[in-house]
Amino acid sequence: MSSHPIVEYTSPSSWALIEDKFSPFAKETLAKLIRFLEEEVQPALPVAAAQLPPGPERWKTVLPVIEDLKAKAKALGLWNLFLSKVHYPQHGVPLTNLEYAVMAELLGRYGHISSEATNCAAPDTGNMEVLARYGSPAQQKRWLLPLLNGEIRSAFAMTERFVASSDATNIQTAMRQEGNEIVINGHKWYASGAGDPRCSIYLVMGKSDPSNTSAYKQQSVVLVPADTPGITVVRQMHVMGYDDAPHGHSEIVFKDVRVPVENLVLGWGRGFEIIQGRLGPGRIHHCMRSIGAAQQALDTMILRMTDPARKTFGKFLWEHGTIIADLAKSRAEIESARLLVYSAALQIDKVQAKGALKEIGIAKFTVPSMALEVVDRAIQAFGAMGVSQDTELAQSWANLRTLRIADGPDAVHLQQIGQRELKRAAALRAKKDQLTKREEAAIKKWNVKAQL
Amino acid sequence: MSSHPIVEYTSPSSWALIEDKFSPFAKETLAKLIRFLEEEVQPALPVAAAQLPPGPERWKTVLPVIEDLKAKAKALGLWNLFLSKVHYPQHGVPLTNLEYAVMAELLGRYGHISSEATNCAAPDTGNMEVLARYGSPAQQKRWLLPLLNGEIRSAFAMTERFVASSDATNIQTAMRQEGNEIVINGHKWYASGAGDPRCSIYLVMGKSDPSNTSAYKQQSVVLVPADTPGITVVRQMHVMGYDDAPHGHSEIVFKDVRVPVENLVLGWGRGFEIIQGRLGPGRIHHCMRSIGAAQQALDTMILRMTDPARKTFGKFLWEHGTIIADLAKSRAEIESARLLVYSAALQIDKVQAKGALKEIGIAKFTVPSMALEVVDRAIQAFGAMGVSQDTELAQSWANLRTLRIADGPDAVHLQQIGQRELKRAAALRAKKDQLTKREEAAIKKWNVKAQL
Amino acid sequence: MSSHPIVEYTSPSSWALIEDKFSPFAKETLAKLIRFLEEEVQPALPVAAAQLPPGPERWKTVLPVIEDLKAKAKALGLWNLFLSKVHYPQHGVPLTNLEYAVMAELLGRYGHISSEATNCAAPDTGNMEVLARYGSPAQQKRWLLPLLNGEIRSAFAMTERFVASSDATNIQTAMRQEGNEIVINGHKWYASGAGDPRCSIYLVMGKSDPSNTSAYKQQSVVLVPADTPGITVVRQMHVMGYDDAPHGHSEIVFKDVRVPVENLVLGWGRGFEIIQGRLGPGRIHHCMRSIGAAQQALDTMILRMTDPARKTFGKFLWEHGTIIADLAKSRAEIESARLLVYSAALQIDKVQAKGALKEIGIAKFTVPSMALEVVDRAIQAFGAMGVSQDTELAQSWANLRTLRIADGPDAVHLQQIGQRELKRAAALRAKKDQLTKREEAAIKKWNVKAQL
Amino acid sequence: MSSHPIVEYTSPSSWALIEDKFSPFAKETLAKLIRFLEEEVQPALPVAAAQLPPGPERWKTVLPVIEDLKAKAKALGLWNLFLSKVHYPQHGVPLTNLEYAVMAELLGRYGHISSEATNCAAPDTGNMEVLARYGSPAQQKRWLLPLLNGEIRSAFAMTERFVASSDATNIQTAMRQEGNEIVINGHKWYASGAGDPRCSIYLVMGKSDPSNTSAYKQQSVVLVPADTPGITVVRQMHVMGYDDAPHGHSEIVFKDVRVPVENLVLGWGRGFEIIQGRLGPGRIHHCMRSIGAAQQALDTMILRMTDPARKTFGKFLWEHGTIIADLAKSRAEIESARLLVYSAALQIDKVQAKGALKEIGIAKFTVPSMALEVVDRAIQAFGAMGVSQDTELAQSWANLRTLRIADGPDAVHLQQIGQRELKRAAALRAKKDQLTKREEAAIKKWNVKAQL
Repeated sequence: MSSHPIVEYTSPSSWALIEDKFSPFAKETLAKLIRFLEEEVQPALPVAAAQLPPGPERWKTVLPVIEDLKAKAKALGLWNLFLSKVHYPQHGVPLTNLEYAVMAELLGRYGHISSEATNCAAPDTGNMEVLARYGSPAQQKRWLLPLLNGEIRSAFAMTERFVASSDATNIQTAMRQEGNEIVINGHKWYASGAGDPRCSIYLVMGKSDPSNTSAYKQQSVVLVPADTPGITVVRQMHVMGYDDAPHGHSEIVFKDVRVPVENLVLGWGRGFEIIQGRLGPGRIHHCMRSIGAAQQALDTMILRMTDPARKTFGKFLWEHGTIIADLAKSRAEIESARLLVYSAALQIDKVQAKGALKEIGIAKFTVPSMALEVVDRAIQAFGAMGVSQDTELAQSWANLRTLRIADGPDAVHLQQIGQRELKRAAALRAKKDQLTKREEAAIKKWNVKAQL
Repeated sequence: MSSHPIVEYTSPSSWALIEDKFSPFAKETLAKLIRFLEEEVQPALPVAAAQLPPGPERWKTVLPVIEDLKAKAKALGLWNLFLSKVHYPQHGVPLTNLEYAVMAELLGRYGHISSEATNCAAPDTGNMEVLARYGSPAQQKRWLLPLLNGEIRSAFAMTERFVASSDATNIQTAMRQEGNEIVINGHKWYASGAGDPRCSIYLVMGKSDPSNTSAYKQQSVVLVPADTPGITVVRQMHVMGYDDAPHGHSEIVFKDVRVPVENLVLGWGRGFEIIQGRLGPGRIHHCMRSIGAAQQALDTMILRMTDPARKTFGKFLWEHGTIIADLAKSRAEIESARLLVYSAALQIDKVQAKGALKEIGIAKFTVPSMALEVVDRAIQAFGAMGVSQDTELAQSWANLRTLRIADGPDAVHLQQIGQRELKRAAALRAKKDQLTKREEAAIKKWNVKAQL
Repeated sequence: MSSHPIVEYTSPSSWALIEDKFSPFAKETLAKLIRFLEEEVQPALPVAAAQLPPGPERWKTVLPVIEDLKAKAKALGLWNLFLSKVHYPQHGVPLTNLEYAVMAELLGRYGHISSEATNCAAPDTGNMEVLARYGSPAQQKRWLLPLLNGEIRSAFAMTERFVASSDATNIQTAMRQEGNEIVINGHKWYASGAGDPRCSIYLVMGKSDPSNTSAYKQQSVVLVPADTPGITVVRQMHVMGYDDAPHGHSEIVFKDVRVPVENLVLGWGRGFEIIQGRLGPGRIHHCMRSIGAAQQALDTMILRMTDPARKTFGKFLWEHGTIIADLAKSRAEIESARLLVYSAALQIDKVQAKGALKEIGIAKFTVPSMALEVVDRAIQAFGAMGVSQDTELAQSWANLRTLRIADGPDAVHLQQIGQRELKRAAALRAKKDQLTKREEAAIKKWNVKAQL
Repeated sequence: MSSHPIVEYTSPSSWALIEDKFSPFAKETLAKLIRFLEEEVQPALPVAAAQLPPGPERWKTVLPVIEDLKAKAKALGLWNLFLSKVHYPQHGVPLTNLEYAVMAELLGRYGHISSEATNCAAPDTGNMEVLARYGSPAQQKRWLLPLLNGEIRSAFAMTERFVASSDATNIQTAMRQEGNEIVINGHKWYASGAGDPRCSIYLVMGKSDPSNTSAYKQQSVVLVPADTPGITVVRQMHVMGYDDAPHGHSEIVFKDVRVPVENLVLGWGRGFEIIQGRLGPGRIHHCMRSIGAAQQALDTMILRMTDPARKTFGKFLWEHGTIIADLAKSRAEIESARLLVYSAALQIDKVQAKGALKEIGIAKFTVPSMALEVVDRAIQAFGAMGVSQDTELAQSWANLRTLRIADGPDAVHLQQIGQRELKRAAALRAKKDQLTKREEAAIKKWNVKAQL
């Protein structure tokens, strides 16, 4: 049985399924990441909390402890782990999606900070993927390189306040070319990351060709520097009571915002193509981080349930009610979800995100709900402290809850997977027709009377 | 069929079950309350939000619009509706628990403000019940009358940070008599309402007789003015990211706090007796307000699902996925929960809270979970806006989530109800023995061969 | 508090809600029924099992012990309790739907026999309702009176094997008039009760006017004596492995079956009208019997969980795992479902089934699922014996499972209730518009800045 | 991407995870099995149903079509696939548990017949494992070889009617040695397979040393020929209405049954050791067959939902209600369960069943419930036909339901897995203590004030 330290965080049986798919480099990087998280990132969490000032200053602060972690991570080669060389030969690291998936679960155990420390934080990850895949050399030089270096941050402005943008064809932000400039007018919100003082660039999705007969060719993506005149950050949106400062989820109005036409990504009307490519691996990253959050909640719950100082009615908390069953179910659900996402990540490695849409979709509507359930059990087991600011549980729940909506709500993914099942009907029917003939032959051969 | 306006908020069939148990006064009061909520309270909600300043000032503010509402409610006789004359002949209003339950659902539709406007807000309600039932004439004069008048507010300091106080025998706050004074040392948190600038009095539960052989006679309740030296409000606790200012959930340290012995309620060692009496009807009020919140969420969801501006993929939102089934289930669950709590409230009217422990317990572990489910469906249907600060849904969810922990977590109530079921075993066994004899006689009489 | 024996079978709190709606006659009948069930019906259950022969003889047997029970019930006035005088002045008994609902729960505790013993068994009940309401005097004389007397039995042949008859407009059985005769050709199945040797009459639903522009006027109901030439009972259908002999669920082919035109019920094209009226109260009866079955399962489970002979690992079964929580949830779900159906029954009393469609629909999709859950928990708690023929649990589960399909599958009722909720949108929107105006006025009056 | 035909029955992504763990022989055997099942077994199903006579003759019949299938399977090398050479070097086939797991899913798609046709049917499989591992040469010669050849069948008599034998220490069947004989007295039931006319040998578990201080050394396993005097097969037990003839679940009384002492397996007091070893892989086989049954139900459901002859209200069935979401969830749950059992099977291959208890336990309490849910959705989607004898769904549900009880009820496995989680507390606490020190150092180094 393997002695890799990952089995302590996952399980020997899940590691056994994938170990032979890990390169020596990936195994070593994984072990290094575990040490870094245990020895550097975890202890930095209370420091980061203390370095975030109260009030409006929170939105103007770069936390020194995180910058320190970033330097350490870069020195250790724990940097941009999400960007697989397989798909991004020029800028990527030699890790597969599966290999990074295992790492992403670990990142998810320690909130946002661990992802930022290793330059693996959304939405930068997806934005770097877009720029690496579709950006012009000039765009890459100006925006991708500083992002890859962790010098600036970015936002993706897609969701709109006044339309149902879970159907992206509804997006209304207007983009038109005037001479050498693109003029943008629109009203976005939940542009995650736009609150960060280092956020320098927005990738903005908008409607450039409203009369195109294909609804999927009306949208384009344009790079808009955060300090362009005409941009107003109206306010920071909340997520179940959290504003997630300094990261933030911004409401942004674009009024006659002008950028040079060179800031167009890929070409007019290519918006859907861009977001399709952007979302696949990102969804898997979110899922793995969710599993990490769930596993962390389970571990926290076990500590509480066995805490001698927390006995009630003369018994340990684990001796009460349905706690043991809750622990068992949580463990089973986590193991199960983990394998599901592993298989989706491997599928992306084999046949690109496009060939793994089923696996990605299943993970997307399954995993956040599972993690919510596990975290909710832990909250309940903690009592008042569970809903408070004194554990990660409440904020973790809020983050996970948002994942059931972000990047396509559950209903959209359920619908797509259900439709894929329906498409199997033709093949099933053909097989059934064949079977019917064989049954008739068998009935005749055995000279029996069919009962139906 | 009745034409009382309540049927628009509940349903003709639930009203039919209870209408004949309503006095003419209660029917009229209920109708008046509906008008007051529609015409005065609802429009005041955005005003109240605007009058709450940002930053630390939020904890020092008395909202003018609420004071205005309180004056209006008092003038209309919509005041202290929770305090039933049946149980509180001296201070109560001529309404039964059932009659108030129907009103409490309506109050629950509009957040905390409607309860405060009618002086029906927790924790004042429970504290007034304690003082009305157990307070000395002096205690009543000094604290009950201003509470009944809505001039001051109060808190109940029971939960402790460092022990599992869901088993109240664990409460550690020390209380001892020294001469004519009581000296209190302890560390409380989640003392709801203690953040309000008008909060003048804490009802503090503590351990006065740690060596008493009965764990249920070790605790006492003492009245502690909020400005007593030795009290430090350490911070305001959060609930899923919300601090609920100006109400608040305070962490409070009591260090050598001294109050006159006259501030003891009912007598030394009577703490359990007091909280038992306090919690029964209060739990029902919470349940009814939860139902109101759920019904409000359902109504909000219906509006969104039918909004022509929110079509996706060419269809109304209600035409997608499982929305119609979600609406139907939500409706069914709300109706069902409502009837359950009606029957519990009626039982309290008939045989006091003590005789209605089963009904109260069932409502306690059933209703908040139901309401959470309904609100969660609405959040999901709203998408990003559902988790934002722009609807009541997210905060409503946070409040409801806390109710699965406050006043005894679900597990405690499930345990108690399950134990009550087990106690039926003796009677069931006696009946079965009787039946066995009758079966044997019947088998003999009919001269057949038994199969088992 | 009431001392009526019903509270032992339901609960004081649910009885308190409805006691004042019971006539003295109903209270007395209810008490009498309880005694009859305890002293006569229950002990007869093993006798009935022993009197049912094995093999094909089961379909030809009238159980003597049930005939004996019928005579006793009739003598006691416990007869046709389902047929409310309110709706059936000529043939009914002076009981409301609510009063009978309480009795139907008790009947449901003892399987099919108790309903048959009191002449309250489906499908005779619904068929008697049809004949009492819509039958001609001649039809009533020939078929209704012997049914009311319990001399013959009947079946309702609606479901068809080869079409999706949950949409009744799909029904294909052809009916045409030739001279003074009606000629019927079709293929039915799951004609419940048609297996009984006393079953003399089928109410057959078929398509008489396939070209009528209204799909709801194409169907008619015709009375077909069971011994009419051209009828072939092909086989008995199973329900999760049970054939429910001698009652049965028959597959029946009608080939050129001819009956006099006088056997048409109500008139050509009135089929939908007839089944609408037939289904309302019947659904409530099914729901109440389901609740009785669930309550019986819970009682049985309590006996098992406290049986000293069934300890495992040194503990009573109730001390293991989630049993106590299961008992508590079961109790809560039963109480809740009971109140829901009470309110539906009362609504039928007040405004007829037509006015109670929402309540009936909610009960229809809620109650059988609830009961299945409770019975399933009991099966699990019993272990191997739970799935065996040695308790009522397995067969009870099978019966209840069928109720999620019979008389309209869950999905149809969810859909209808969801649609009703959507219809509330207009009124909600009107109210919201009114509110918006009031909010604007309040914001202006208070001179604050709205935040949205 | 692999082109192995298995991906049509499972999915490319799950195959990708395990393909490199399959030997060429296993891949070829798997492909051969698929063809055999499609071309021979499936068409034989209606023949087998027709060859089973009605009435008591069912218990005396060996179905010719199955004997024919057995001969063909043996000729093809599709025989005893369950018996892995890794664990059973002498008698086993060169397949790992993982490789067989994939095959067992396919066997599970076609009910009991496919397992019998390939000599992979319970309880023979477990009994062969016992004899291969623990049997004496004489026992192997007499019983194992004919079992391996499919000439005889066997039963495992463990469960007892009158005690809670889910705790196997409760088993009461008495075994004592008298001279060279073992004398057995006891009352078993649910001895699956004992109804088969070819069943020649029972493995009987009983209490041989009731006063042993270790409850786990009191039990022994003895081989009892089915025709030994003193054995009475009292009756066949049902499973939700099914008697599963000719296989059967027998109630058997042993009265002074005598066998030679050579029939003792392994040694006195070794009963627990034997059943522990017997149950591990068997549970995984059951789980994989359950997944096959679920996948079969899903495929069946897709055919029905897209059947143009089954439209209701003008729409395909899949266009109604929650069907698409049901399909998507079913697919996700099946994929997820499959990966879970793969990982458990691989773990058995790596570290024996003993080292895979966690994975086996999780699969045991997770998979049957999942499969029940999927089959139940299909039943509901089929309507009346779903509960009938005309599809496999109802019987499949009954079989699966029993799996939640057989080989240890869910509660036992939940308990064991929960307890294992609790055992992680010590390591988690050690790690937390270490972390606390690092946090304190970091807080000091950064000179910030900790917030908790």
